This record gives sequence, C-alpha cells and structure tokens, in this order.
Amino acid sequence: MPRYALRVEYIGAPFAGWQRQADQPSVQGAIEAALARLEPRAHTIAAAGRTDAGVHALSQVAHCDMVKDWDPFRLSEALNHHLKPAPVAITACARVADDWHARFSAVERQYLFRLLQRRAPATHDAGRVWQVPQALDIEAMCAAAKFLVGRHDFTTFRSSICQAASPVKTLDELRIAPAEGLSGPEIHFHLRARSFLHNQVRSFVGTLERVGAGAWAPDRVHAALEARNRAACGPVCPPQGLYLAQVRYPDDPFA
Amino acid sequence: MPRYALRVEYIGAPFAGWQRQADQPSVQGAIEAALARLEPRAHTIAAAGRTDAGVHALSQVAHCDMVKDWDPFRLSEALNHHLKPAPVAITACARVADDWHARFSAVERQYLFRLLQRRAPATHDAGRVWQVPQALDIEAMCAAAKFLVGRHDFTTFRSSICQAASPVKTLDELRIAPAEGLSGPEIHFHLRARSFLHNQVRSFVGTLERVGAGAWAPDRVHAALEARNRAACGPVCPPQGLYLAQVRYPDDPFA
Repeated sequence: MPRYALRVEYIGAPFAGWQRQADQPSVQGAIEAALARLEPRAHTIAAAGRTDAGVHALSQVAHCDMVKDWDPFRLSEALNHHLKPAPVAITACARVADDWHARFSAVERQYLFRLLQRRAPATHDAGRVWQVPQALDIEAMCAAAKFLVGRHDFTTFRSSICQAASPVKTLDELRIAPAEGLSGPEIHFHLRARSFLHNQVRSFVGTLERVGAGAWAPDRVHAALEARNRAACGPVCPPQGLYLAQVRYPDDPFA
Repeated sequence: MPRYALRVEYIGAPFAGWQRQADQPSVQGAIEAALARLEPRAHTIAAAGRTDAGVHALSQVAHCDMVKDWDPFRLSEALNHHLKPAPVAITACARVADDWHARFSAVERQYLFRLLQRRAPATHDAGRVWQVPQALDIEAMCAAAKFLVGRHDFTTFRSSICQAASPVKTLDELRIAPAEGLSGPEIHFHLRARSFLHNQVRSFVGTLERVGAGAWAPDRVHAALEARNRAACGPVCPPQGLYLAQVRYPDDPFA
C-alpha cells in the first residue's frame, strides 16, 4: 500500500484534540472520515504530535496508507473537499517510503505560543491567543527561559498523566519575542525540541507569565526546574494560544 | 450631555454592516443596545466609516452622548461587558468636545485589505482574507496602482448606489506589500484617503487582482480610470479581506 505524508493545518477549538475518540470530534477522526470517502474502509493515520483539546496546528504532519496509487496533489484536493466545513486543511501531500513514519521519523517539533497583551476582549483573535490584561516584562521572561534550555529532567513541567518513559528531554530553543498582531501587542514564544512532554509548553508559558507579571523572580524558575516536582510549577496556561508550528524530518517529504 | 469618542474593533461576518437596520444585526445596533443597558433610552451613535456587510474593523471610531458623566475607562469596560458575546470590542474611550463628530471631524481613513495566496482552503484565516489560489505578480499590481493615486474622478471604481455628492476624491496612498501570515503568503493593500466612495477599495483590489493574475495589463487600469464608467471596472472583490484600519483626526482623541 503506498504511503503518503500529509501536512495538516487546523483550528483546535471544535475538537477534543488530535486523537480519535469514540464520542467526541477529533482531528484524526475528521481526516480518517474523509479518507473513508475516498477508499471506503477503516483508516488509521498517525501524526507527529498528538495535540490536546483546543490546540491548533499550522503544520502538523501525518501519514496514511492507501490502496490506490493516488497522485499526491489529487489526494490532497479530494481530502480537502471532503473535510469541509471542518476547519482542517491538507496543505501538502507527498508520497513517502513504506517505512516512513510521521511520528517516529520526526527529528524536531516546533511550537508557537501567542499571548495577547490587552485589556479589551479580543475579537479577531478570540480563541487564537491567550489574552493577558497587563503588560509583561519580556526581559525578565527571557532571563527565566534561559534556565529551561538544554537537557534537563522536566518533571516539574509535565502533566501528572504524561506517558513519556522519561522526564529527561533536551529543549533546543525557547525564544520570546514581541510581535505586532492585528489586535495589538503580542508576545510569541518559539519552542524547539526533538520531542515534548505532555503539557510541557503550557507549563512553561504559564510559569513564565508569572515572571513577566513580576509575581515570580526569574531565579524561581531555576529552583522550580531543580525541584523536579510538579507542585513547583506555575499555573498551566490555557491551550488556545498554542500552535504546532513545524515538524522536521531528516529529509523534508514536502520539499 | 457629555460626548465620548469610542475606538471600536469588530469582526464583520455576523453583521449586515455598521449601520443600524430594522431586521438585521448591525454593529451600530449592538453598541446602541449596550449603551441602553447603561442609560435606558434610545441611543444614536455616529461612526467615521459606515462599513458594509462582512467588512471588519481594527480601529473604527464612533461617538456617543451620555446623560451621566462617565469615567471613560469605566464606560468602555461597561460597554464591553454588555457587548459580549458579539465580536465587538471598545478598545479605547475618551471624553471629547460637544461639537466633535466621529464622521465629520475625521481627516483621514486607512483601510487594509488582506489577500491570501494559496490553494488549500483557509482554516485560521477563513472569513478574514480573500483567498486567491494562484500566485500574483505584485510588481505589475504596483505599476497599475500608481495610476490610481492622486486626485481623480473615480466613477469607474464606485458602486452604482454610491451616495457621495462627487466622484472626485484624492487617494493619498495605495501601497501593496507581501506579508507573511500564519497561513502562508499574503498580499496586503494599504489605502489612505480623506474619504472613500462606496465599494471603492473592493473595486480597486478586485481590479488589481486581475492585473496580478496577468489577465489585465497595468495600463488597462489607467484606461479604466479615464473611462469614468462603472462598466470599465474589474470584478469587485469580496468583503471578508477588508479592514477599516485607522481613522485620523486633527487631534487624536485617544492620545
């Protein structure tokens, strides 16, 4: 069966997350249902990152196996036709080797977290940013973020239900930069690692927001990391500012 | 009665436009209903630009007259409370002189038009951009746009139901620039004038898109302008990429 890599974009709000669930809408379920319109049978696809409920993707990557030998462009067009009106789009499709795996072949995940700093309720960006009413100290947040970069035991910053075998991961980048959004001043968090623990990004951002607000000194993030204790984490921030932004492979299947 | 200037942001999609209508939702109607929750009586507010159905605002300006002497910040907070869940927000509020008028005191309007160039259906930006599947030639569009800047009879580029006394207006700027959006490459049209005719921006952008697609030579835009004939206009583009971006006054009421 020929295997295809799919680059997938979606809005997280209407879904209980990436993963297929019996009674709730999921992104995986929506794509599998579209595949079943093309080849009527049960489909099971795999993705690079199993995003949580409410988390968006700019560039998720999944793979599917087909019986028919599809032209990749026609496959993406047919899927997009059947995905409507769900806010899910296949933005690229490519034939890959039979042993290529969207999850296990991936060597890097990149996430973007958008925080909007303003008092008035968001309109254009409602559900797409985490809105914080007060201005935040970006320099203090950058100072705190430095403690998190590198290879660490991230027990403090992972959900108690995280299923990863080890809490030790290498965070390659945590860059915090001001950005001008349509609705006002945003702060963008850019994170890069081979893989992430469950709720790791939201645990980081929620904790760093406390630093930006002046409630935590930057050093307290270092102490929290060293504690290797979930109770030392700051508040976990909401999902709606989080985007799976990029997945990298040794060879880009869409190049 | 103390007069207040309101800076207003909204998503155009759920509304039949700015202007109050008997049987359809409007932005003006939504704000007047919120005002009536604060001071129960009929309210009539005026705006700098009476945007059409589906057109968004980043920074519309309106004014209202109140009986009570409101603290401007508290007035904006109370209005935002009563506007929920409509996608309308008061992003600034200021006390102004009794003869200050949101429409007649304005000296400049700025519009932004967002065009998304891509094939796959938009998800994050659905309803917020005009999506065009093919790549457009920005240089050709810029060459054509030059003919439109300045003082001209814009009969070709105004709706047949436009109520302006004269079709002669001065377009101060029509800048076309590539922009990187969350969903891919965008083209942004930045327009600036004291005032605009009905459907003028959408007539410009729809015509310039034909130039970018190679269907019209840039010179044809000059000929269309000179024709002073609505029939010479290109197709009017849809409203969902259009944003009222800024309104300027001799003295910024929100400064």
